[in-house]
Amino acid sequence: MSSFTPADPAYAARVRHSFERQGLMAHLGAELLRVEPGLVEIALPWRRELTQQHGYFHAGATSAIADSAGGYAAYSLFPADSSVLTVEFKVNLLAPAEGERLRATGRVIKPGRTLTVCELEVLAERDGAATTCARGMQTLFCLLGRPDEMPRD
Amino acid sequence: MSSFTPADPAYAARVRHSFERQGLMAHLGAELLRVEPGLVEIALPWRRELTQQHGYFHAGATSAIADSAGGYAAYSLFPADSSVLTVEFKVNLLAPAEGERLRATGRVIKPGRTLTVCELEVLAERDGAATTCARGMQTLFCLLGRPDEMPRD
Amino acid sequence: MSSFTPADPAYAARVRHSFERQGLMAHLGAELLRVEPGLVEIALPWRRELTQQHGYFHAGATSAIADSAGGYAAYSLFPADSSVLTVEFKVNLLAPAEGERLRATGRVIKPGRTLTVCELEVLAERDGAATTCARGMQTLFCLLGRPDEMPRD
Amino acid sequence: MSSFTPADPAYAARVRHSFERQGLMAHLGAELLRVEPGLVEIALPWRRELTQQHGYFHAGATSAIADSAGGYAAYSLFPADSSVLTVEFKVNLLAPAEGERLRATGRVIKPGRTLTVCELEVLAERDGAATTCARGMQTLFCLLGRPDEMPRD
Repeated sequence: MSSFTPADPAYAARVRHSFERQGLMAHLGAELLRVEPGLVEIALPWRRELTQQHGYFHAGATSAIADSAGGYAAYSLFPADSSVLTVEFKVNLLAPAEGERLRATGRVIKPGRTLTVCELEVLAERDGAATTCARGMQTLFCLLGRPDEMPRD
Repeated sequence: MSSFTPADPAYAARVRHSFERQGLMAHLGAELLRVEPGLVEIALPWRRELTQQHGYFHAGATSAIADSAGGYAAYSLFPADSSVLTVEFKVNLLAPAEGERLRATGRVIKPGRTLTVCELEVLAERDGAATTCARGMQTLFCLLGRPDEMPRD
Repeated sequence: MSSFTPADPAYAARVRHSFERQGLMAHLGAELLRVEPGLVEIALPWRRELTQQHGYFHAGATSAIADSAGGYAAYSLFPADSSVLTVEFKVNLLAPAEGERLRATGRVIKPGRTLTVCELEVLAERDGAATTCARGMQTLFCLLGRPDEMPRD
Repeated sequence: MSSFTPADPAYAARVRHSFERQGLMAHLGAELLRVEPGLVEIALPWRRELTQQHGYFHAGATSAIADSAGGYAAYSLFPADSSVLTVEFKVNLLAPAEGERLRATGRVIKPGRTLTVCELEVLAERDGAATTCARGMQTLFCLLGRPDEMPRD
């Protein structure tokens, strides 16, 4: 359980609504598993379209769901009328991302008015066991007074 | 122009062949633009399937092609009978990844027998102009005596 | 408690002996607090000689003890006849490093024959309370068959 | 030559004055070599007090001057009534930091009202030759309306 109090009581709906507008998450086949204040989990089932040259999950797929998980973990604590930008992130790929499914968790470790810092973890689930395949850190920016919905023409 | 001498004269074909087996690159619509010793460039045309919630390229898409560009830049200098693993990477997202196309460049800044370090840059092309939207650094591992082709069952 | 079994039963003496030869740690006034398999803690009492322009601990001092803590956490799991090199590290400075003392902890999160990954945390102790002022990740390299003691002429 | 126009014409004096108040830089023996808009260079002559266990410069010393160089490169572009904080940085240690002197350069690659991003490079000078021993990236925060001078009691 996270210990943060969200500024916006409707945080979970806001996160889910934003996630659904991310074309990339749908294209990869990612699902939003869990949304709590300061904690978001995203799952990604394996398919050939997500692989690197050895058939494992591509580091780009691993990073994409880790980045979204951390971004939404931060966004869950932001006020209603705001949006979230990734400033930077770093991931260490600790083991081959091999298995039926990845599960990325983003956790806020330092909330802030302008900058929020998250830790990222990605598990690879295989035959009922879960192995940490990536760990990371991420810095997010809160854009106040800018609605999240700004469709590209 | 890069200034490295590849260990394997057939490095370019080896890189292209490996790139073609990356399911994720095809799924995103990425193309290999340039393969030189220690330098690889990958392009990614915009489409709705690559976006974050504002319609820009998702940081996960930006990172995926940056990671592949750096990985193959390193791999171009590796011996024939080897494969490449990303140890870690870090990206700073400097500007919205907005435009018709992204172009990621991976450049080896420190080759090594075991570890190679690359710098990563991603440009966003829009209306004929190119803006740097991401910069990064990446550490790669050379697995000797392990062929690149190991298909997942 | 860490859950690693050290390859070298004399790991703690080896770590302490190496720490004592780090001119920088003595010059900063750092002390080795705790050495366990895969976990090392270093303390740094405040003094004017460690500050940045506002009188807080300089990020360079914070990073120096974090880097040493992680390096020795990794080294504690290495075989006797080896040395340790930092490949890279990344730190996020989460709060002003303000107080009487810093306490840096390095924890192995992924041991390996060649590469080991650590997480880093630095607490600032002030008036009896401790605040996390930095978090980081670090990649270490194990140089086998190379004694740790190689004095510069 | 850098291509930035500083907001404060007295930027160089402001940087030098702040540098002089960093207790750590004096304690290490670091010197400010060059201050241009968006570019700062710091030198650090070798002495036993700066070493790791093999007698090379400690990664903490390398990082400390790299962090200060980048911080002041950003600060040179900030308005007069502001101060600079390091949000995060990442360094790759590319070669042993071995030689008579280190020379760290911080270069702004993306200036911003709130956040500025720098690239960091550290050269090791030895017998008349210079080798890149570290490369990094750094994110800085501009605190407006907060004078740089805030001495600790």
